[in-house]
Amino acid sequence: MPYKKNLKVSDLGEDYFIEKVTKGLIAYKDVVIGAGDDCAVIKTSDKKKFQLLKTDSVVEGVHYLSSDSPIAVGYKAMARAMSDIAAMGGTPHHALVTLIINPSSKLSYIKSLYKGLSKAAALCEISIVGGETATAGKNSKNSITISLTGSVQKNQCCYRSKGKPGHKLYVTGKMGGSIKGKHLKFTPRITEARWLASKFTPSAMMDLSDGLASDLPKLARASRCGYEIDVESIPRSRGSSIKEALTDGEDYELLFAISPKKAATLESDWNNLFSDLNLTCIGKLQALGIRKPKLDGGWQHF
Amino acid sequence: MPYKKNLKVSDLGEDYFIEKVTKGLIAYKDVVIGAGDDCAVIKTSDKKKFQLLKTDSVVEGVHYLSSDSPIAVGYKAMARAMSDIAAMGGTPHHALVTLIINPSSKLSYIKSLYKGLSKAAALCEISIVGGETATAGKNSKNSITISLTGSVQKNQCCYRSKGKPGHKLYVTGKMGGSIKGKHLKFTPRITEARWLASKFTPSAMMDLSDGLASDLPKLARASRCGYEIDVESIPRSRGSSIKEALTDGEDYELLFAISPKKAATLESDWNNLFSDLNLTCIGKLQALGIRKPKLDGGWQHF
Repeated sequence: MPYKKNLKVSDLGEDYFIEKVTKGLIAYKDVVIGAGDDCAVIKTSDKKKFQLLKTDSVVEGVHYLSSDSPIAVGYKAMARAMSDIAAMGGTPHHALVTLIINPSSKLSYIKSLYKGLSKAAALCEISIVGGETATAGKNSKNSITISLTGSVQKNQCCYRSKGKPGHKLYVTGKMGGSIKGKHLKFTPRITEARWLASKFTPSAMMDLSDGLASDLPKLARASRCGYEIDVESIPRSRGSSIKEALTDGEDYELLFAISPKKAATLESDWNNLFSDLNLTCIGKLQALGIRKPKLDGGWQHF
Repeated sequence: MPYKKNLKVSDLGEDYFIEKVTKGLIAYKDVVIGAGDDCAVIKTSDKKKFQLLKTDSVVEGVHYLSSDSPIAVGYKAMARAMSDIAAMGGTPHHALVTLIINPSSKLSYIKSLYKGLSKAAALCEISIVGGETATAGKNSKNSITISLTGSVQKNQCCYRSKGKPGHKLYVTGKMGGSIKGKHLKFTPRITEARWLASKFTPSAMMDLSDGLASDLPKLARASRCGYEIDVESIPRSRGSSIKEALTDGEDYELLFAISPKKAATLESDWNNLFSDLNLTCIGKLQALGIRKPKLDGGWQHF
């Protein structure tokens, strides 16, 4: 994109925008990964462990509707951040909750939001240890920001960046049609990701929040690879087209790459342990430059 | 307040509201303090250290104006969270930044916000390790949420709750008139608070964000004490009345209590080390029930 003065967020798209503004941030020695993966990764005084840090927001009118159940909205807000901790192979621990709310919001509504937040937190014994509630103007939309800490064994931490050409690409669950309800009541894949990280340590892993068409190229790029997938093999939610499976987004499933040597054991062990959840090989990482098919992005907020 | 259905945030005030919605949150064993102090306090694998967690937001039109310099706004957002880490006697480490922005926001504006965030972060070698940028609707106000981690030696952690009747009350700096500019360019008292915590470990400490009239009763209540202060002794910014010094808020100075036995050494050591910054004894903690004068709250957002 040629340089233009006074570019607006709406001109740039979320990813490009974040890249622009976070470029050049100073990170000190204990930072393993800053911006650019599902979570930040930080060294700790325990040499075998990393701390994970994540912040994530849902905004009324963008990620949920004012008519959605506040319990479901609270659940979604917490579960989205949990899904990012899962994507690193980690375990979530402590959450901070920031509500930016319209002063006309009702106490009963906010209490129900907290019920939903607590419901998701209870899945992993996450403590909600504090928060901030600020009011914006009278015409403002509500937003909920979750900051979540987690931890992961250093040798099990799953980045996006260690994939190699030839590594097989897998997805959990089914893609597409999330807007029909799943986006408010998905299960973050913490258990499955913890198991994957400890037994197989995928060479690259992320959670699918923007849709395969957007997220797969991100994972491949982070690993300096291309990719080759069979779009017909993508597991689809009932009634979803291939296009919808690729671009609807908000699947909150795992996408990961793994050495082909480990594939047979992975598949049989998975089917024994997680028989209720699909695990599907959709293709493999390829040499940089190969993109089959060419995917030009998925769901974007902007 | 008698129970009423459909209470709104604007009916309740921020503090009461937060108390209502965070009551009954489940905290697991490693949580020393959840909501209710300046930061959450968490046990770590290092038995001598606690982790501190804080989230704090600034909202356009509430905490700053759209006409304020974005560098100053970014600085303020980060420095506010740093001031809370200081209030526990801690050192800040890693920040996550969440921007909720109007899609018409300009890239140059957001870059300047980040310049200000980085300027404050650099004061304490804080790494900004990631963030989230989400757009709200077209008429929405911008907001910046900072989540900050920190650490403190276990035996130096300064709560609000360990003050005792007779302990002397001190404030740093001068109170009042922050809106004339200081609210955008204060210095978080990290150095002074670290020194206080390591040499004297105040029995109660907090940062002054809502004004003495609101914050002193909070500190006293957390310590199950009353208080007695000489309002004439409150150090005031040039041109500020006693009322303004008590209620303007956004001073971002330290308020702390300390055993009278330590007072003389504290004062002389302070004057040697921090001769540029006032340290003023304004009174003492008293038995529960004594409130001289009766302060009925300070600056409130709502």
